[in-house]
Amino acid sequence: MRNEVHSTNYPLVPGHEVVGEVVELGSEVKKYRVGDMVGVGCIVGSCGRCLSCNSNTEQYCNNRIFTYNGIYKDGRPTQGGFCSAMIVHQKFVVRIPEKLSPEQAAPLLCAGVTAYSPLRQFMGSGKVLNAGILGLGGVGHLGVKIAKAMGHHVTVISSSDKKREEALQHLGADAFLVSSNAAEMEEAANNLDYILDTVPALHPLQSHLSLLKVDGKLFLVGVSPKPLQFDATDLILGKKNITGSFIGSMEETQEILDFWAEKNLTSMIEIVKMDYVNKAFERMERSDVRYRFVVDVAGSNLE
Amino acid sequence: MRNEVHSTNYPLVPGHEVVGEVVELGSEVKKYRVGDMVGVGCIVGSCGRCLSCNSNTEQYCNNRIFTYNGIYKDGRPTQGGFCSAMIVHQKFVVRIPEKLSPEQAAPLLCAGVTAYSPLRQFMGSGKVLNAGILGLGGVGHLGVKIAKAMGHHVTVISSSDKKREEALQHLGADAFLVSSNAAEMEEAANNLDYILDTVPALHPLQSHLSLLKVDGKLFLVGVSPKPLQFDATDLILGKKNITGSFIGSMEETQEILDFWAEKNLTSMIEIVKMDYVNKAFERMERSDVRYRFVVDVAGSNLE
Repeated sequence: MRNEVHSTNYPLVPGHEVVGEVVELGSEVKKYRVGDMVGVGCIVGSCGRCLSCNSNTEQYCNNRIFTYNGIYKDGRPTQGGFCSAMIVHQKFVVRIPEKLSPEQAAPLLCAGVTAYSPLRQFMGSGKVLNAGILGLGGVGHLGVKIAKAMGHHVTVISSSDKKREEALQHLGADAFLVSSNAAEMEEAANNLDYILDTVPALHPLQSHLSLLKVDGKLFLVGVSPKPLQFDATDLILGKKNITGSFIGSMEETQEILDFWAEKNLTSMIEIVKMDYVNKAFERMERSDVRYRFVVDVAGSNLE
Repeated sequence: MRNEVHSTNYPLVPGHEVVGEVVELGSEVKKYRVGDMVGVGCIVGSCGRCLSCNSNTEQYCNNRIFTYNGIYKDGRPTQGGFCSAMIVHQKFVVRIPEKLSPEQAAPLLCAGVTAYSPLRQFMGSGKVLNAGILGLGGVGHLGVKIAKAMGHHVTVISSSDKKREEALQHLGADAFLVSSNAAEMEEAANNLDYILDTVPALHPLQSHLSLLKVDGKLFLVGVSPKPLQFDATDLILGKKNITGSFIGSMEETQEILDFWAEKNLTSMIEIVKMDYVNKAFERMERSDVRYRFVVDVAGSNLE
């Protein structure tokens, strides 16, 4: 995030999809008890006074405090969840439903809520919307599952044919579209109500915008390091929308956890120990993970 | 419009903001009578069967027929309003309110409804929204008047200081912002609920997006001939929206005419005769018009 990820301040403990057990409570905490299983996401603080904070969308507060490599209100650096214990204000803690294992809950705290937040507006509409999921990584694979669980008809859009079987057989998508196949894209034009665009790299928008119906929405959740381009004519003649969405609120984070438990959903994860993290990073860099590593911190020897 | 303005097919009669008197009626026309004052906008036909046509947003029909230089359903070229008489299907005709003069009504049929259509969603919300109008031309000046009449706080955004007096004194805007003044722009950041972007040329979006509040909307109605660029981070961290909007529906065209009459609004026009049109084009090219030429066809010697 251009404005917010500054240089890394060492010593630093990363980790921002954190699940653990409550071991101690502040005197004003009524909502949680010792022994409760709870989660912490990307942010651990915000100003508490602005319009975003007052409308329960504190992730858009200009003074949000990131879970690690941020500066807390006491002036000290924030440290993330790859640790044996952390202190977090109750406002930035969510309850893990009993039905969910810690490792299943973890990816929902950033990736899951990132996919859920823009789609939430469609909940309970009763309409079978035509959904597109662009990019099949940590966020995208959860997007497929969430959209399916909402009853949408889900098309996975990918630049090559490689992930077709994965999308259709393992993730339960209804259709698969190869964006480099012009004929296939033309046939699929003007058909999607929305696209969840999870691609964190420079990519062309025009061909994807062409897939949207009139008034269709492209939700951008992946940050391209270079500016994205679009043709004004495409937006104007089709009344199309490009909208950004940033993680989700604490309220939405609780909602996706509860939704996940209620619908008996599972995310695809690979559990590793702490001494594997460098290897995990290398594999992640070459997309060699289906789809999220979860680090078993408690089960690792941290000495 | 990339997909639709092909080469010009001569002989051609242009003119797409047309006001005239009904002189003859088809046998199935019940809504109008001979002598009624009526208007015709940018389109004179659409397929009548698609989702856009069935939801009264026929301007988004992929088979819309433009008022001139289009091909009508009978295979013949369409001809516009710079003529002594034209034949139009009643669906694509609107009624000019008695209180409006023909010359006042004319600019509403394209420019006016283009500004009105995206803002219509805010009607009757009762909220004092902070509006930005980018570009002070034919569409922009009507945008200022419409937004003011809706009770919004209106800021005109311009690349230079030249139009400050015009905007504040003559058009009734509440504020004026020079987009090339970085300090002024920074001070105005995160404050607008929406921007009506009427600029029909390549222009930077980043500085304008920075003016929007969280969940703010940039409505694009002017077509840049080159692709527009934006930074994904700006859209994501601020939950900002870029939305296209194309003229307006026939229903919306009738609404803006009625709204204009009800609110006693006036557009700024210069009436010319037909023999002045070449001169008018030259002046328009150098932005030497406040803000719309209206051609008095009936009062011109067309022989």
